[in-house]
Order: sequence, then structure tokens, then C-alpha cells
Amino acid sequence: MASLGNNIVIKCDMLVSSTDVPPGMSSWQIARKSIVSCASDLAAKGAKPTAAMISLGVPRNITRPYVEGLAHGFAGASREFGVRIVGGDTNESSELIIDCCMVGAAGRRMPTRSGAQPGDVVVVSGMFGLPPAGLAILIRNAKSAGAFRKLAVQSVMEPVPRQQFGMTLGKFFSSSIDSSDGLAISLYELAASSGVDIVVQSIPSARGLEEFAKENNLDMQELIFHGGEEFQIVATIPKTDLGRAKAEATKSEIELNVIGRAKRGTGKVFVKDKPLENRGYVHLT
Amino acid sequence: MASLGNNIVIKCDMLVSSTDVPPGMSSWQIARKSIVSCASDLAAKGAKPTAAMISLGVPRNITRPYVEGLAHGFAGASREFGVRIVGGDTNESSELIIDCCMVGAAGRRMPTRSGAQPGDVVVVSGMFGLPPAGLAILIRNAKSAGAFRKLAVQSVMEPVPRQQFGMTLGKFFSSSIDSSDGLAISLYELAASSGVDIVVQSIPSARGLEEFAKENNLDMQELIFHGGEEFQIVATIPKTDLGRAKAEATKSEIELNVIGRAKRGTGKVFVKDKPLENRGYVHLT
Repeated sequence: MASLGNNIVIKCDMLVSSTDVPPGMSSWQIARKSIVSCASDLAAKGAKPTAAMISLGVPRNITRPYVEGLAHGFAGASREFGVRIVGGDTNESSELIIDCCMVGAAGRRMPTRSGAQPGDVVVVSGMFGLPPAGLAILIRNAKSAGAFRKLAVQSVMEPVPRQQFGMTLGKFFSSSIDSSDGLAISLYELAASSGVDIVVQSIPSARGLEEFAKENNLDMQELIFHGGEEFQIVATIPKTDLGRAKAEATKSEIELNVIGRAKRGTGKVFVKDKPLENRGYVHLT
Repeated sequence: MASLGNNIVIKCDMLVSSTDVPPGMSSWQIARKSIVSCASDLAAKGAKPTAAMISLGVPRNITRPYVEGLAHGFAGASREFGVRIVGGDTNESSELIIDCCMVGAAGRRMPTRSGAQPGDVVVVSGMFGLPPAGLAILIRNAKSAGAFRKLAVQSVMEPVPRQQFGMTLGKFFSSSIDSSDGLAISLYELAASSGVDIVVQSIPSARGLEEFAKENNLDMQELIFHGGEEFQIVATIPKTDLGRAKAEATKSEIELNVIGRAKRGTGKVFVKDKPLENRGYVHLT
């Protein structure tokens, strides 16, 4: 994301079908997902989307229903995320490519990645691990059933950017980032940019994840910290603002989880007293 | 191109290597070309580029020198076209894809495609036919030598968007468009959007094109009106402003060619007294 001045921000994100589209995703979900990354990144900065441009590369053998699905997905995402799609470009390419470029209006003071201070609390917009579990189910046939399976798969197929969290609470953030590269990388990015250490005291594990991990012999920490396709917001809030932030979150029915705190340091991240690996999600193939 | 309000405009253009890159183009030229379309479109509206975002899809087997060439091309284009590259996104894809999204500042009154009035003169920023000749040389081994060959090939490899033309003379345009889909399509677009007919009286043929066409048994009209990769500006200017526009063009050493005029009508285009085909350039493959 970059600033264009006058509190206008811009973010582009390219979706490439061979690396960003899990098996079974329909074309409207693909179109919708191509908007999510930008909406999520803007949300992490408390910025409200104003307009998006869509550049499309489509293979020659694409079918009419598939293209109609894409159009349906763009229209739905436009309504869902409150962003006008104002133009774009259409091309022929060897695989489906969608580049979304979104412009938004930030608040008076836009949070950066480098503003965390020792003593700030670290907060997240939700629990982690569902999308990596969903990918394990879809790609590696991990066993799962019932509500957990449904939620995990849905978190991959129809990710929800945390727009309310970012736009309502962004004014309290001393630093922030969206977690699309995984929680570990996001925490390291905030810690390194701000020149602090971060200690995670309360692990934000999605409900049902422990049972899923056990049944499939998967590592919980891997799913929570090093998975990908997570569109949560990770932020720091000065301790003195936490009460007001919690009150606003409660009033607006927004999930807000305190998971740790920043302390004097040099960009390291610990989970309880153990160093966390600085490693994240690459992509599907 | 779309307007974001406050005289800010935005334009995205996706370059796809299999359809937009002629044989022999080096990676710095490809990177440069990916910026040209946006710069040209902004220029046609008299808008000054302010910032660009670049989304990149690169194949896994790409070499280091190739990537360095791309970086070199982006840096050079940034200087050449006066646009800061403020961010972007990098991905793996099955072929090289570059999506450029450019934001610019328009003048107080931005010309549309629909403002041409009967009596306006039709102007272009240069002569036509060189890029189609260059493509014929590069792809179909058309015969050519000397200065013409060099200019024709260069017009394909290093196209020049008409920024001075657009930024200096844009205030006089009653309607305008860039000619990247070909001259015929551009004229039809202005005529149809404005609800006028356009009559081309003076055919804007590049020097040496006639000899080249004869030698290769190619149709001149095809090269001039229905070729592609032309980055000229096509505009209409009210007759009463033409004198001032010519004076400013002369003072700034900018090429300005009157090729015809708009008259009452319904969106038709004529070359002298014959209807022009409404047909343009698709892409390389």
C-alpha cells in the first residue's frame, strides 16, 4: 500500500489462478477473492475503499458461464465491501489473472507498521488457523466434518476482510498490518519496523482447531502462526487507549482479542518464552 | 480511465507477454512499455501522472538478468514519464504479466470522448502507420531498410506517449482519446460518443510509409487506420481555438496536425467521401 497524499491510499493485488485459487473455487468466488486482499489491506490502515480498477487476463478457452460468474462476483464484492468498480482492462492471457487496484480514504492519522511502542498491547481481529485448516481439507484431504469443516472451507472460499475492525478501531492503532502472509510474518513485520520485541501470551486459536490438528496429526503452531490466506488485522494499541478501544468494539459488536504486548527490543517475536520462527505462507503450488 | 473526483484520474493497463510483446523486445523495453499505455491515456486527457503501482506476475524459470532488465526499465520509465512508482505486488504466474495502475492530476476541465461539436477540427499528435509497419517487419519479415526500418521498429520497441501534446494542448480539446486501438476505432469512438460525424480530409501518413507499403504489397489504409500499438492522441478542437492551439504548439515545438473536421451526424466516419471501416487492432497472436 502507498499513500498518494491528502489521506488517499492505493493498493494493488494480483490474483494468479495457478497459485491463488484452491480447487473447487467457483468463478464468482475467485472474482470476489481478488477484491478481498485490497479491502483487507485498506482495512488494516483504517481506510475506507472509494474506488477499484480491475485488470483481467482471461484464457481464450474460457466459457460464457465462467465469465458471467466473474461479473457476478465483482458486482457482489462491490456491494459487500462498499467499493465502486470504476474501470479496468481486459486481455487474453494463458491463465486467469485478476489485478485489483483499490483507492481509499484514510483517517487523519494513518497507522504505519513502525509506530508500536514498548508497553503497547497487541490485538487481533479474530482467531487464527481456519484458512490453513481449510486448505489442508481441500488440498491434502485432511479429515474433518460438521461445523468446523464448513467454517474452515468457507474461510478459504469466501474470506472476510475485517473492514469494521479497521475502520472503527483504526484510530487507536499505534501500528497495524493485515495478516495475509501469516500471523508470524505480520508480528515480525510490526516488531522489526517499530524496533520493539513482541511477546504473544494468549495464542489466538480458532475454536475446534485443536481437535482438527490432533485428528490429522498436524502442528497447531504451524496452523496458527505459519498458515496463509488469513485476512485478519494485527495491530498494537497504546495501553492507555485499550479501555476505549474495547468499549467501542463492544458497542459495535466487533471481535477484539488481546494476544500479547510490545516491549523494548530489536524486532524479535516470542510465544510465551520461546522465540517464534519468522516464516510464513508462500502460495498454493 | 476513470475519475476519482477532485480532478484525480486513474487508469490501469495489463501487459501480457504472449499477446503484447513482439519478438526481440528486451525486458527493460517490456517494463517500459507496460507504463506507456497508462501514460498515453492520461496524456490524452491532459492529465499529469503522479504515481503508479506495478503488479508483476513472473514465471518460475525467469533469470536474474531478465529481472534486472525489468527493474531497469521501470526506473527509466519512471524518470522518462515523470511518474513515481509507489508500490506494487509480485507473484508467480505462468507467463510474464505486468499490470500498471497510474494515478494522475487532470486540469480544471478534463476533456471527455463526448464533447466534439459540429464544426470542430480533428487533430492528431503525429503521423500514423509506423508501428504497424514495424510489426510487419518484426513478425512477417516485411522488407525494409535504412532509416524507415529503424524508425518503424523503434516505434514498436520504444513507443513514445504524447505527454507534451496532451498536457500543453489538452485545455483546447473538446473531445480526446489515445489511439492505442488504432486510428479508425479512435475516430469512431469520438464520433459515436459525441453524436457527430467525422470527415478525414488529410490522411496522416508517416513519411516513407507509401514506399514501404508498395514494396511489401501492403494496404496503406490498413496500416494507417487499422493498425495498432499507435500511441498518438486524437482530439477535436473548436475552430475558434485552433489559432491559439497552433501558436502554443509552435512555441513548444509540438507536432500538431489537422486531419479533418466534425460535422452534424450520427457517429459515422468518412475518409474524404468514403465510409471508413470501424475495425482495429486486436493483439499479436
